[in-house]
Amino acid sequence: MTDKLEGLCVVLVATRNPLNIGAAARAMSNFGARELRLVRPYDAAFREAKSAVGAAELMTNASVYDTVADAVADCELVVGTTSAGRRELQSGLKRLEEGGRRIRRQLQIGRVAVLFGSEKVGLSNEDMSHCHWLMRIPTRDKHGSMNLGQAVAVCLYELARDGKLANAKTKGSSGRAAAAEVERLTLLFFDVLNTSGYVKPQVAAATKEKLRRMIRRMNLSQADTEVWLGMLRQIEWMLGSGNHRVGQE
Amino acid sequence: MTDKLEGLCVVLVATRNPLNIGAAARAMSNFGARELRLVRPYDAAFREAKSAVGAAELMTNASVYDTVADAVADCELVVGTTSAGRRELQSGLKRLEEGGRRIRRQLQIGRVAVLFGSEKVGLSNEDMSHCHWLMRIPTRDKHGSMNLGQAVAVCLYELARDGKLANAKTKGSSGRAAAAEVERLTLLFFDVLNTSGYVKPQVAAATKEKLRRMIRRMNLSQADTEVWLGMLRQIEWMLGSGNHRVGQE
Repeated sequence: MTDKLEGLCVVLVATRNPLNIGAAARAMSNFGARELRLVRPYDAAFREAKSAVGAAELMTNASVYDTVADAVADCELVVGTTSAGRRELQSGLKRLEEGGRRIRRQLQIGRVAVLFGSEKVGLSNEDMSHCHWLMRIPTRDKHGSMNLGQAVAVCLYELARDGKLANAKTKGSSGRAAAAEVERLTLLFFDVLNTSGYVKPQVAAATKEKLRRMIRRMNLSQADTEVWLGMLRQIEWMLGSGNHRVGQE
Repeated sequence: MTDKLEGLCVVLVATRNPLNIGAAARAMSNFGARELRLVRPYDAAFREAKSAVGAAELMTNASVYDTVADAVADCELVVGTTSAGRRELQSGLKRLEEGGRRIRRQLQIGRVAVLFGSEKVGLSNEDMSHCHWLMRIPTRDKHGSMNLGQAVAVCLYELARDGKLANAKTKGSSGRAAAAEVERLTLLFFDVLNTSGYVKPQVAAATKEKLRRMIRRMNLSQADTEVWLGMLRQIEWMLGSGNHRVGQE
């Protein structure tokens, strides 16, 4: 994972809020990107940004540039990000899914810069003129503009994700039982186990949690849940009727 | 896009920072998810969270619950999120790419809850016991813990993204085992099962086919295949050495 994003430069242009720089750095650290570059950050004190949990080294090593041209000079592919709102750009725009694929391919052979504009206005036309193409995260038309830190996280995830895992086919299941029904089964099951002497009082809470997890893993259908409930009710009745080792009357 | 996440409930459990609730709401609005549910938020004034740009309606409509059980009662699939750090959970854990696929499919027919734990400790064992399975964002081992708002954004993006755009031909190479290697493993495994008496002669062919399918579903890497082969050779040796119930010499 770490090596996948080697050669990727995250370039933040004219970022206003230092917390957003910190958030970008944290996401970079999460996904294994190392090079943070800042073009004209508004707040010179950005390195103190508090939200950079776990990303202090990345913040310390961040380089600051006066121009986009300088920040991307050593990169072979330069990609700008933009929100869905900019109608005039729609034509040449790639969605992140497709753009991500191209960036991943380029990263195997060279350096790539991905630019993020300021919180308020995004990238300027001048900034964008340095880009080979533009990319947008597939947000809703009505609310296209993402928080900067979240946008960086989503883009890096797309670059780091393993597409093969997502495409394996699994057989469809339907008719799932609702959670309330499954919980009813859990509690009934626990009662039965308790009555039968299975549950040790000192670890009862842990036993109940284990049981709950076990039942969730069974991925029961609505129909099967009803069968289970019927069986357990029968067992519970039998346990209560005195036909068991430790009578209760 | 909007309709894709209809039926999805984002459940934030014991969230401490109202800004994170706001950030989650903003990401939900970006990706077209509508139902925000809060279990015991620390700050009752969460509705004033400032970062909920464009998500005011979503924040206003958010429901508050005392228990996870109540918050997920009408959902047929309940999925917990966790960071990579929790070693003890690794076995049953699905990566977001795979989990997302399952959630998308379930969303076509019913309601799904995705749970996010508190910033400090994540979901408790009790919280997780309500989940059918757990899912993690594929972050680095060394820095697995994501900011809550960013984690929500990444998960929603995975659910909303268009996989077809990303899969348009790119040849990828991975550490996957070659088919010949997998078949070698299959045949060795079958021999071991046969020697051990597991295989009934009259259904041997069907058993072999089932085994073949099962091993394919494991999606083994090259490295794991080698480990498997090593283990099976050891077992085969032991079976052949006479240290088993039915000797062969």
